[in-house]
Amino acid sequence: MSVNTFGRMFRFTTWGESHGPALGAVVDGCPPGIALTEADIQPWLDKRRPGTSRFTTQRREPDTVRILSGVFDGRTTGTPISLMIENVDQRSKDYSDVAKAYRPGHADYAYDAKYGFRDYRGGGRSSARETAARVAAGAVARLVVPQVRVRAWVETIGGDAIDPANFDDAQIDQNPFFCPDAEAALRWEALVDAARKSGSSLGAVIACEATGVPAGWGAPLYAKLDSELASACMSINAVKGIEIGDGFAAAALSGEANADPMRPGADGPEFLANHAGGIAGGIATGQPIRLRVAFKPTSSILTPVETISPTGEAATIATKGRHDPCVGIRGVPVVEAMVALVLADQALLHRGQCG
Amino acid sequence: MSVNTFGRMFRFTTWGESHGPALGAVVDGCPPGIALTEADIQPWLDKRRPGTSRFTTQRREPDTVRILSGVFDGRTTGTPISLMIENVDQRSKDYSDVAKAYRPGHADYAYDAKYGFRDYRGGGRSSARETAARVAAGAVARLVVPQVRVRAWVETIGGDAIDPANFDDAQIDQNPFFCPDAEAALRWEALVDAARKSGSSLGAVIACEATGVPAGWGAPLYAKLDSELASACMSINAVKGIEIGDGFAAAALSGEANADPMRPGADGPEFLANHAGGIAGGIATGQPIRLRVAFKPTSSILTPVETISPTGEAATIATKGRHDPCVGIRGVPVVEAMVALVLADQALLHRGQCG
Amino acid sequence: MSVNTFGRMFRFTTWGESHGPALGAVVDGCPPGIALTEADIQPWLDKRRPGTSRFTTQRREPDTVRILSGVFDGRTTGTPISLMIENVDQRSKDYSDVAKAYRPGHADYAYDAKYGFRDYRGGGRSSARETAARVAAGAVARLVVPQVRVRAWVETIGGDAIDPANFDDAQIDQNPFFCPDAEAALRWEALVDAARKSGSSLGAVIACEATGVPAGWGAPLYAKLDSELASACMSINAVKGIEIGDGFAAAALSGEANADPMRPGADGPEFLANHAGGIAGGIATGQPIRLRVAFKPTSSILTPVETISPTGEAATIATKGRHDPCVGIRGVPVVEAMVALVLADQALLHRGQCG
Amino acid sequence: MSVNTFGRMFRFTTWGESHGPALGAVVDGCPPGIALTEADIQPWLDKRRPGTSRFTTQRREPDTVRILSGVFDGRTTGTPISLMIENVDQRSKDYSDVAKAYRPGHADYAYDAKYGFRDYRGGGRSSARETAARVAAGAVARLVVPQVRVRAWVETIGGDAIDPANFDDAQIDQNPFFCPDAEAALRWEALVDAARKSGSSLGAVIACEATGVPAGWGAPLYAKLDSELASACMSINAVKGIEIGDGFAAAALSGEANADPMRPGADGPEFLANHAGGIAGGIATGQPIRLRVAFKPTSSILTPVETISPTGEAATIATKGRHDPCVGIRGVPVVEAMVALVLADQALLHRGQCG
Repeated sequence: MSVNTFGRMFRFTTWGESHGPALGAVVDGCPPGIALTEADIQPWLDKRRPGTSRFTTQRREPDTVRILSGVFDGRTTGTPISLMIENVDQRSKDYSDVAKAYRPGHADYAYDAKYGFRDYRGGGRSSARETAARVAAGAVARLVVPQVRVRAWVETIGGDAIDPANFDDAQIDQNPFFCPDAEAALRWEALVDAARKSGSSLGAVIACEATGVPAGWGAPLYAKLDSELASACMSINAVKGIEIGDGFAAAALSGEANADPMRPGADGPEFLANHAGGIAGGIATGQPIRLRVAFKPTSSILTPVETISPTGEAATIATKGRHDPCVGIRGVPVVEAMVALVLADQALLHRGQCG
Repeated sequence: MSVNTFGRMFRFTTWGESHGPALGAVVDGCPPGIALTEADIQPWLDKRRPGTSRFTTQRREPDTVRILSGVFDGRTTGTPISLMIENVDQRSKDYSDVAKAYRPGHADYAYDAKYGFRDYRGGGRSSARETAARVAAGAVARLVVPQVRVRAWVETIGGDAIDPANFDDAQIDQNPFFCPDAEAALRWEALVDAARKSGSSLGAVIACEATGVPAGWGAPLYAKLDSELASACMSINAVKGIEIGDGFAAAALSGEANADPMRPGADGPEFLANHAGGIAGGIATGQPIRLRVAFKPTSSILTPVETISPTGEAATIATKGRHDPCVGIRGVPVVEAMVALVLADQALLHRGQCG
Repeated sequence: MSVNTFGRMFRFTTWGESHGPALGAVVDGCPPGIALTEADIQPWLDKRRPGTSRFTTQRREPDTVRILSGVFDGRTTGTPISLMIENVDQRSKDYSDVAKAYRPGHADYAYDAKYGFRDYRGGGRSSARETAARVAAGAVARLVVPQVRVRAWVETIGGDAIDPANFDDAQIDQNPFFCPDAEAALRWEALVDAARKSGSSLGAVIACEATGVPAGWGAPLYAKLDSELASACMSINAVKGIEIGDGFAAAALSGEANADPMRPGADGPEFLANHAGGIAGGIATGQPIRLRVAFKPTSSILTPVETISPTGEAATIATKGRHDPCVGIRGVPVVEAMVALVLADQALLHRGQCG
Repeated sequence: MSVNTFGRMFRFTTWGESHGPALGAVVDGCPPGIALTEADIQPWLDKRRPGTSRFTTQRREPDTVRILSGVFDGRTTGTPISLMIENVDQRSKDYSDVAKAYRPGHADYAYDAKYGFRDYRGGGRSSARETAARVAAGAVARLVVPQVRVRAWVETIGGDAIDPANFDDAQIDQNPFFCPDAEAALRWEALVDAARKSGSSLGAVIACEATGVPAGWGAPLYAKLDSELASACMSINAVKGIEIGDGFAAAALSGEANADPMRPGADGPEFLANHAGGIAGGIATGQPIRLRVAFKPTSSILTPVETISPTGEAATIATKGRHDPCVGIRGVPVVEAMVALVLADQALLHRGQCG
C-alpha cells in the first residue's frame, strides 16, 4: 500500500516528484467559512523556499502556490482544497549518476527494492521537495486553529547547541538558521560554510512549541496527541528521532524530578513544571506542547562512498548536484506545518466526539 | 474521536479498563490458515505479567488469554480474532484518593478535561494494564511474519547504561530486567530496590531490534516504516521519545560519518554500517531494524506532590497502591509487540500493492 | 483484507461466529457522559431474537448482552464499549452435511475460494447470527442521536405487499412480521406457514424511516448519507437491493413528477413532497429519511439442490437445520440498527467539521 | 467531516468544482510498473464528455486529462498519480438565478444547511462534473485488473425498457444512449428529444456487468463486494437505487426459484443460474458480477417549481442553463468507472490478506 494521506478528520493528500511538472496537496475536511487566499499560504512556503541563502540548496524555485478548488468568494466551502506548486528549476541532467548507482543514505536502493524501479531524478517522490506541499497544507491548518501558535527553531547544528540563556524569539527570523541565539547563529555560519565548501553535511535538532492548545485535545489510545506528532515528524525526510517534553532525558530522572505539580490557577490548573511537554495520557494538558526532532546530516556528500549499481555491481558515488549542507535548517517550517496539521486534526476530532 | 484501533491492513482494536471485568483485543485482517492456539499467545503475556518479581507491581494477575473467535480447527480463518483477558486482582479501594485529586504525570486531569469525568479506578482506560491486550495481539502478529525476529531489552535504568561490550542476548531472559549485561543487571537490582523501598521511581530506555525484515517493506510517505514505528511506540504509556538507528546522535554527525556504504553481497547488498537503523526513505533496506524508546519514571510516587482536586481546590497526593518502580521494565514485551504489529501490517501492505 | 469495522467517527467492530463461544461488538468513538446500561440494549436484541414465534428459526438463544468496558457509574466514558453475547444453543451436529457440500446461495463456496477453508458450523462468520452484534451496537447509536427516531417494518413478503392505506404504526409490534397492515399480517401468517412446512422460503422488502434528522448531516462525496446507508444495508446478510426515497420508481418519472418543491415553513422550508427520501446531494434535507431494502429468500431450503463438494465432486444438498423461512422478517431490527449507526456517525462527522 | 477519498488500498481523492479552474483526482496505492499514459485515460473521458450529441448538455468541455505525477518512463512508480482536467467552458452567468433560490432536487438547500453557504455556480462541488475525475481514476483502475471487463449500458429511459431478446453488445457504442437494443434506441431518440424540447427530463436505469472477476475477491463483513459496489454507485449524482443480481425481484421469489445450483465444471464450479449477481456472502463467486443502478430524472427543468430563497422567502425557479435531459445516459461511463475502482481495490485487498 502507498499512503500519501495524513490525518483523520482534517486530512491532506500530497502528490508530486522532485522533477515532475508540479506537486501539490489536497486538503479535505476543512471547516467551511474560513477566509483563505494564496496570500495566507505563500509566506510559509517562502520560509521553506530553497535558494534564499548560501546555506541552502541553490535550486531556484519560486514555489508559487495556486488554490484550484474549495474556496469561493474568499472563504473555504468545506469541500476539498487543491493546492498546486509548479516545479520550475529542475535540472534533470544533474542526476544522471543517480540512475547508475544507489546513493547511500538515500531512498534509492529501498525504492528499487520495493517498486522494482524508481524515478531517479532528484530522488523522485522521496525528495524533500515534497515537503513544500506539506507546508502549503500546514498553512491552511493554522487557520483552522487560530488560537494556537506553532513555532519551531534550530537548537543544534552538527552538535553545536544554542545557549538556552540566549534564547530570543525575535532572533529566529533574523538569521538564515532559524536560530534563537544570535551568538550560535554566528558560529553556525562558519560551521555550515565549512561543510558546504568541503561538500560535507551536518545534522540538526529542531525544537517546536505550540501554545494555546486547550486541555482535552488528543485521541487515545492510538491517535494520542504525542503519538500523532511522532508519526507526523518521523515522516519528514531525514528525521531519525522525536522527543516529547524532556524525552530521553526523562528516562534518567526520578519520579520526583520528573513530576509536573499543579496548583489552582486563574483558568484551570497552574502547572509548576512541564517535563511532560504538555501531554499526559496522549491528551493535551493546556500547557505548551513541546517537542524536539533530530535530523540526520544530508546524505548527499561530495566524498565518494562505496555503493552498488541497480544491477548489483560495485560502484562509488559522490553526489554533486545542488544540496542543502544541513537539511535540518529548512526542516523548521516543515516541522511547524506537521505540528499545525496534527493540531487542526485533533481539534476537529475532539469537537466531533466531545462537542 | 476515540481511536482504539491500530494498523491499516493487519489491524487490532483494544478495549477494557484497569478495573473492569476484562480487557481484550480484536485482531482483524489476519491471513487465513495460520496455526494459532492460546499457547502461542500466553508466553508473551507471561513475560509482561505483573507480580513476577519484587521489581514490578505486586498486582497478581494471571493474564490468561481466551480466543473467542476467528480460529477453527486450530487455524485462523481470516475473520476477526477476539482475544479476552479477565481482570482478577482489582483492588478498587486502593484508588479512592485518586477520585479526589489528580495525580500529576498521570492522565487524570487530561481525561477529565477531555471527557468531563473519568473512571478513576487504577487510571481506567489510561492504565498500562491495557498493554496486555497489545501483547496478545502482538503474539498473533509474530505468526504472520515468522521470518522476522523481534527482540527488545533494557538499555538504561535511571540513566545507568549497559556496557555494549557486555551485550549477551542469552542474558536478556535470565534476569528480571530484560538486561543483556549481567553486570548492569546486578547494579539495577540495587537501584530499583532502592527506588521501590523509598517509594520513588526510575525511567528507562528500551532498545529493540527486528531482524529478517526484507528490503521493500514500508509505505511512503505517511505510513513510512519509521513513522509507523514512532506512532506505535509513542502510543505506549510513559513513552516520551523514539529514535530510529542512531537517532539524536545522528544529528551531531557529519554526512561522511553517518553514511551506510554498500558493497555487492551474496544476497543483495552488504551494508558496511547501519546508522539508519535499517530504514531509508521510510522503507526497509534489509538490514536489522533498530530503534530505541524512552520511558519516563513511573508517575506514581510516595512523595506527596502538589496538585488540585477535580473541583479546583489545592491538594497533595502521594500514590500508595501497587506500582512498578520502573514502568520501562515491563515495557519490553510491549515494545516488542508493537514492533511486531507494525511489521505484520507492513508485510500485508507491501504484498497488497507490490504482489 | 478483512474489514469488520464500520463507521468513521462512531465506529463499531464485530467479531464472532455462529457456533463459537460468543460474539460481540466493540463500539469506539461514542461521546462521553451518555447514560448506558444493559437494559438500554437488551430490548433491541429481544426484538431480533430467534425462536420467538414459529415464523423464525427455532434456535433458542437468550442473546443476553454484557457491557465489558467503556461505562463507569452508568455513563459512557468516551472509551471503547465492549459488548458480548454468549452463544448458548449451538447444535453443531446439524451442520455436518455442510462440511461436505457447498450450500448454493450461501457463502460456503465463496469463503473456501477466498480463505482456502472455512468454519462450516452454521456458516461460521457468514451467519446472520453476527447481526446480533450490530443490533447491540445500534442500541448504543440510538442514544447518541436521541432526537432521531428510526423505525422499520416489512412491506412485502414473497411479493405480497401491504396496502399503504392500511398503514398503522401501532400494528408493527403487534404481530410476528413487523407488519403495519393487520390484514397483510393475517395473509402472511398463512404464506410463511406454508413455506415453513414445505421447507421452502420467501423473500421480503423492508422499509425504514428515520425522522428527526436535521438538515446538514451527510459527508459528501464518498460518505454521502445515502451512500453510507447503501453500504450499511447491503452489508446485511441476504440483502440484494437498496432504494432511497422513490428509488427505482424515480427512474420512470419525469423531472416534474419527481420534484420536491419547497415553501417557507415555520422552521426552515416546508417540503411539498419527498421523492428524494430526505437526502439531496448526499446531505439530509430535514425531511424524513426513507429507504427500502430487498432481502432474498433464505437460501436454506429442504428441496435438494445440485451442488459440488469442496473437492469438486457433484453432490446435492437439502438444508435441514433450523432456519428462518423468511430471513427478511428478522432483518427489521438489523436494518434499524444499521440506519441508527450511520446516523450517529454522521452526527459526529458533521459536528466535527461544521461545529 | 468531508470525505472525498474512496477505496481502502487502491484509493482516489477527487477535488474541484463545476466552475473552478480545474478538477482532478489523486490515485494512491496503484501497483508499480503498469504502463500508463494519458492515452489510456482519454477515451473513457471522451465517452463521458458532454456535448457529443443533442441528447446531452451542450456545455463544450474537451476534458483533456494531464498526468502530473506518479508515472516515470511510461510506467506507474507506485506513488500517487495526480490527474488534472481543466475547466474550459464555464458560463457562470447562467447560474445567477441559482444564487437567489434553491433548485428543488438539487443539493443547493442541503449544502447551505450544512456549510452555511455554497459555491452556487453550476452546483459547485455537487455538480455531476466531478464525475469526470472518477472516470479518469477508473481508467487507471481498469489497468490494475486487466483480466476484468466492466461494461455498462442503459436499460430503461423514462420507464421504457430494452427488450432483452434484442440485447446486442456491439450496439452499445453505436448510439448516443449506450443502448444495446437498436429498436429501443430509436424510441429513446424521440423520447429524449421530446423531453429536451419541452425542458422536461427523464430518469434511467443503468445495468453493469463485470466479467473475469475471480472467486474470492471481497472483504467481509463491512467491505463486502456488494456493499462496496452499493456505496460506490449510490455516491454518483442522481442515483437513488442499486440492485445486485436479481435485486428487488429476488424478494418476490421462493428459495427454490432463487437458487444458483452448481455443477463440477472445467475450472471450478459451473453455475446453473446467477440470481445472486456473482456475489455470495460479500465475496465473488467467479460468475459475472451483475448490478443495476437507478438514476432519477435530471432535477433541472424548465417548468417553474415552488421553492424558497436562502433568506427563506417564497420563490419559484425554472432552470434554464445547459443540462442533460436524462442524466442517466452519461452515467454509464461513471458507473463503469466506479465498478472498476471497487474491483481494483478488492483485488489488492485480497492479495494483501490472502497472498
